[in-house]
Amino acid sequence: MTRPLSIGLAGLGTVGAGVLKLLRDNTGLIAARAGRPIAVTAVSARDRHRERGVSLAGLRWYDDPAALAADPAIDVVAELIGGAEGPARALVESALAARKPVVTANKALIAVHGTELAALAEETGTPLAFEAAVAGGIPVIKALREGLAANRITGLSGILNGTCNYILTQMTEHGREFADVLADAQRLGYAEADPSFDIDGIDAAHKLAILAALAFGRPVAFEAVHVEGISRVSALDIGFAAELGYRIKLLGIARAAPGGGIETRVHPCMIPLSAPIARVDGVFNAVVIEGDAVGRIMLEGRGAGAGPTASAVVADLIDLARGRTTPVWGAHSGALSAAPSVPIAAHVGCYYLRLMVVDRPGVIADVTAILRDLGVSLESMLQRGRAPGEAVPVVLVTHETPESGMRAALERIAALDAVLEPPALIRIEPG
Amino acid sequence: MTRPLSIGLAGLGTVGAGVLKLLRDNTGLIAARAGRPIAVTAVSARDRHRERGVSLAGLRWYDDPAALAADPAIDVVAELIGGAEGPARALVESALAARKPVVTANKALIAVHGTELAALAEETGTPLAFEAAVAGGIPVIKALREGLAANRITGLSGILNGTCNYILTQMTEHGREFADVLADAQRLGYAEADPSFDIDGIDAAHKLAILAALAFGRPVAFEAVHVEGISRVSALDIGFAAELGYRIKLLGIARAAPGGGIETRVHPCMIPLSAPIARVDGVFNAVVIEGDAVGRIMLEGRGAGAGPTASAVVADLIDLARGRTTPVWGAHSGALSAAPSVPIAAHVGCYYLRLMVVDRPGVIADVTAILRDLGVSLESMLQRGRAPGEAVPVVLVTHETPESGMRAALERIAALDAVLEPPALIRIEPG
Repeated sequence: MTRPLSIGLAGLGTVGAGVLKLLRDNTGLIAARAGRPIAVTAVSARDRHRERGVSLAGLRWYDDPAALAADPAIDVVAELIGGAEGPARALVESALAARKPVVTANKALIAVHGTELAALAEETGTPLAFEAAVAGGIPVIKALREGLAANRITGLSGILNGTCNYILTQMTEHGREFADVLADAQRLGYAEADPSFDIDGIDAAHKLAILAALAFGRPVAFEAVHVEGISRVSALDIGFAAELGYRIKLLGIARAAPGGGIETRVHPCMIPLSAPIARVDGVFNAVVIEGDAVGRIMLEGRGAGAGPTASAVVADLIDLARGRTTPVWGAHSGALSAAPSVPIAAHVGCYYLRLMVVDRPGVIADVTAILRDLGVSLESMLQRGRAPGEAVPVVLVTHETPESGMRAALERIAALDAVLEPPALIRIEPG
Repeated sequence: MTRPLSIGLAGLGTVGAGVLKLLRDNTGLIAARAGRPIAVTAVSARDRHRERGVSLAGLRWYDDPAALAADPAIDVVAELIGGAEGPARALVESALAARKPVVTANKALIAVHGTELAALAEETGTPLAFEAAVAGGIPVIKALREGLAANRITGLSGILNGTCNYILTQMTEHGREFADVLADAQRLGYAEADPSFDIDGIDAAHKLAILAALAFGRPVAFEAVHVEGISRVSALDIGFAAELGYRIKLLGIARAAPGGGIETRVHPCMIPLSAPIARVDGVFNAVVIEGDAVGRIMLEGRGAGAGPTASAVVADLIDLARGRTTPVWGAHSGALSAAPSVPIAAHVGCYYLRLMVVDRPGVIADVTAILRDLGVSLESMLQRGRAPGEAVPVVLVTHETPESGMRAALERIAALDAVLEPPALIRIEPG
């Protein structure tokens, strides 16, 4: 067996410590599968003396992570610091510039700076691997970029944020409101103290941007992703969804738009209960991929946590040890597509619209007249309970309609004086 | 771009024609992802003049597939003939001996002769790829061997035969008997004229043997797989399964046995409806993999057909074009495990037992006395309907119990004169 592949590891949080632990727990098995031992030999983190549950004895310590890139005894840099800027970005750039292969779990970095980093990787002929950046332990990047490489991908959709899926699942199962469940999730450690990155959909959008780039063979375009979070999803709408045969999930969706270009969006969706992804609950992630040859594939598993993320990071290290590499976006930059991103205004789909209206004659007529005037065709209407003169919910489900028309209708409907709260609008997706 | 990777393709049935078509439909995209064009330049099949829906113009023709291995203008041999012996085996052996990489969809060949073929591949340093051999378009071999390579795999289970899953799904949804649904499936082309390979579980066992070898890093051991087919599953038992909260599926299961060694078995199972794999219906396949770091992963998709199988074959070709290779069983032969196969008699699990008994006092007492004497503990007993003196079904569900005890009990129970038909015994699995 050849000498060990020597890893310099930056960032010793949950993921970094998990990688150290996994490489030690499964040393023999990993060496067999990699064809050579893989050993972390140097580390860098903010605090040398924090208790992490793993021994750092015998490892070289660097206060400055960028020093890992300069250490000639290091073969591969593992960047597990996180964040699109700062030391993570500096380390990855300096490692690639020094022709040292990089493995990272950093979705923000790849989503925001992936185009420049891919150019640098290509220019220096240096592998940049990031399986752990999307869907944790699910090998979805490998599936898209290698396993399904023969396919023209027509679309993909995924539950890409475990915190949001946990919250929506709890709301669904217990009929509770968003704020209550979020507070519980924070207590249980399923949500951060500052949860906005997760619940506002940013984390899912980073991951979706990466998947979309791989699926459609084009440079990553995070800024083009339309993003809505889950904080406005109410128990009332979850209840109506169930009644209509749907589940509400935060999905990341990328698809070839019928008129050309690529649609990328993250928002709460109503999905038919019959769709397999509708039943992926709790902290689990799942990705559905549609290819012209393979049809529909679904991958499901844990999207976060020390073990699953370390599983993906070490898989990338094993690939490097075996000499298995792939261009960042699946093809040489010259072979990438220039397919434009399509704005959400151009989206065409079905919608769920829930209003709180004063229960009096003529209100429904006013609402439906607006929809008719804007060319929005209704599939069904639901009004439960009567309370003359008081607020009652009214649910409308549309046939396929352009988002632009729906938005215009929504604005006019919201302005009706019988409509008492901002209407809830949720896109309906096949799942 | 470098010169095309030149493929010699043997076998122009559904899969072979599908590969030709896919390489033509997605030529540009495949070249971009492979880093060079991939083109079939020579073919071999039984009948040169059969209409296959794809043109063979411009391709060299060989009557003898082994000639493809000898053609110096061919870089890679794609073996799509099928069968564990005969021309398929001869071609793969001669290609590896000639140091020509091989891509095959042939599960029988890999399951039965995989050990010798892996030795030959290792000896000659020649890649042997077979993603299409298991679960069609689902990249499960890549997931196991690369994506989850950092994990100690503790178990896997899968729906590995679409024909059986289609038949069981139809029986479940329409309450119909096996023979009726099989006849329909044959008419619809979902089952072969001679369906025994599928319905007796042999095809699933080939695939399971391959997955088990990859999961546990040991040479393939097809002959050690315990195999039962679905022909004895009755509508009655499917009905009781539903009543008890289960679905009946034909699963292939490989797991590290509690007492050491590896259990490999293919048989009808009762799976709780809450398990995701219980809801994988129709011709779909799915594989659940459990790893120590990643937890539980499920992959789902189409397990057969021209498109999905071609997707896997061409993915292997793209890997070869990119120089991405992996040893056949995931590690060099010297690093493989020698974990023995555990016989089914050593299995410990829960059982569903359904008897047809004469409805008269004392019969249940006789049955339960036998179970007690053999140390089988009951979880529940169900007797629906009364028909004094006539045959009625009795269902017993056991707690965890050794298979050996269960078998002994079954023999004695079947010999009771109040027991009118061979009892139905179905293992209960967590899914």
